[in-house]
Amino acid sequence: MALPSPVSWDAEKNRLKILDQRQLPWKVSFLFCSSYLDVAEAIETLAVRGAPAIGVTAAYGVALSALHGEKKSVDLALKRLASTRPTAINLFGALHRMKKRAATLGSKVLFTGLLEEAHKILEEDLKANRQMGELGKTLFPQKSIVLTHCNAGALATAGYGTALGVLRAAREHGKEIKVFVDETRPVFQGARLTAWELLQDGFDVTVICDNMAGALMQKNAITSVIVGADRIAANGDTANKIGTYSLAILAHYHQIPFYVAAPTTTIDYSAKAGSHICIEERDGTEVRTSLGSPLIPDSFPVWNPAFDITPSQLICAIITEKGVVFPPFIENLAKL
Amino acid sequence: MALPSPVSWDAEKNRLKILDQRQLPWKVSFLFCSSYLDVAEAIETLAVRGAPAIGVTAAYGVALSALHGEKKSVDLALKRLASTRPTAINLFGALHRMKKRAATLGSKVLFTGLLEEAHKILEEDLKANRQMGELGKTLFPQKSIVLTHCNAGALATAGYGTALGVLRAAREHGKEIKVFVDETRPVFQGARLTAWELLQDGFDVTVICDNMAGALMQKNAITSVIVGADRIAANGDTANKIGTYSLAILAHYHQIPFYVAAPTTTIDYSAKAGSHICIEERDGTEVRTSLGSPLIPDSFPVWNPAFDITPSQLICAIITEKGVVFPPFIENLAKL
Repeated sequence: MALPSPVSWDAEKNRLKILDQRQLPWKVSFLFCSSYLDVAEAIETLAVRGAPAIGVTAAYGVALSALHGEKKSVDLALKRLASTRPTAINLFGALHRMKKRAATLGSKVLFTGLLEEAHKILEEDLKANRQMGELGKTLFPQKSIVLTHCNAGALATAGYGTALGVLRAAREHGKEIKVFVDETRPVFQGARLTAWELLQDGFDVTVICDNMAGALMQKNAITSVIVGADRIAANGDTANKIGTYSLAILAHYHQIPFYVAAPTTTIDYSAKAGSHICIEERDGTEVRTSLGSPLIPDSFPVWNPAFDITPSQLICAIITEKGVVFPPFIENLAKL
Repeated sequence: MALPSPVSWDAEKNRLKILDQRQLPWKVSFLFCSSYLDVAEAIETLAVRGAPAIGVTAAYGVALSALHGEKKSVDLALKRLASTRPTAINLFGALHRMKKRAATLGSKVLFTGLLEEAHKILEEDLKANRQMGELGKTLFPQKSIVLTHCNAGALATAGYGTALGVLRAAREHGKEIKVFVDETRPVFQGARLTAWELLQDGFDVTVICDNMAGALMQKNAITSVIVGADRIAANGDTANKIGTYSLAILAHYHQIPFYVAAPTTTIDYSAKAGSHICIEERDGTEVRTSLGSPLIPDSFPVWNPAFDITPSQLICAIITEKGVVFPPFIENLAKL
């Protein structure tokens, strides 16, 4: 795969190298973060996004805070990074792990120990994506026309992708996979990121506006829908990019299987149901503009939730690295 | 109502004055068309859009072609204007009427006769909108939170609007009407036009991205959905702006009433079902850009249907100027 890594460690200069996703698909450029504050800003401004990628990035942010061996700085980093985005559980999972690891480390090995932990989180995510691909690919017919939403790809993870990783694995296994991509307003992660990374890989890709999904399904053109997740409740209710819920209803109406692919780090067993998941509302400017170009005046009221909750009844299977989970989710997710 | 007329005749200079909707909501500016060719271009480039407004505009285009009393020029105008956009039946209805009228006129009265007919078409549309408002307003509870898609307002008609006309009438009747507006990619008629014209009127309006409609309904925030139509088949299947079908399914899933408002000139009794309606596919540039600002490269494949078909089973009532039509539509539309 020729795709640049969305997040990688620059060992020579002790800094984090982030593919700046705000510039895609026009420019492959990188941000270099030398402090946890840089990392927090990169997450908040969507230079890096996608639940697993946010987790990995935040872990490196914590490592960066330990460069001078100060535990106090690590505490500040943990707090600052936790405040960046509220919905992706992988962020909090990674921070929790880094905090636990920090507690076992003296100041001399604080940085090297935390860096090692961040590397492990990255490696585990990569491995989980490959495993999801292996397990999930069997769900797709030999000739599939798949609709996906937002970006649950290499760019949203340490690499390879969750939902798109499954499609990659199916294709590597000789299946014919044609992909339709919702553009995913307001930030266009589908049009800009998913289309870009799949075209780089040689997939047959077509971008549609979000409101075209129903018409596409009506033409019997879609054999499955697959998306990623930002947080999955214990009962299988899934928080994912705004528009996922609408898509799940459309798939249900057209009797098209609807799949979620996410590593087990995305499951929040402490959230009994979707209603317990905090949904980030972002600045209305994203809706009033299109990537910075004005669409409507600031005086026009808008609503801008970044995610929605898809109830588990609308989900046919959740693909994790430990197995493909079918309903009843409350029992089968608990078994993982 | 302080809204400027979307289409009006400049009697002093014998030309058609069109509110340039491509400039809204930023600028209220007008195009002046002195020939049917100007009119055809205004329709094709969406300076004027909306099925009833297209019909009225095209009628004036035919009148303009008769300025020098030449029937041959009228024939050319009829042909050219018919080729502008394929889906809105009001266009073909208006042209048919103008053609019939032209056949009764000698060259000396060709222009004045056709201008009179165009005025009549405009007046009838205005009157139909007011009547739809009167009849349709009863469908809305005293406190309504309504979702609409695209622009079926004053700007899409000779004035007052179809779907938005009904909301105006309900409000004039003392009802509390809060409106959510789908932005309506790719051309943003909802965000730019509907929000603008309703805010001008003092409505409580919130713009959402198209993919937020499901999440909005999930919150129990919506009491009804109302849209316009570009063509209605004899069985009630309705062609309207792309995304309408998705919205109808979402409303159905949430048990929210879904209404269509359109004058009887929008009904095409020759089309037995939606499958007989021609759906315009527009240039992919609309999807690859956002009102001219590039989003993704020209090399990215896209699909850009301008309309979709909502099957009549998903429609609770069709509001026309001759009555509110309930299922079974095939029988009840025939009675009109």
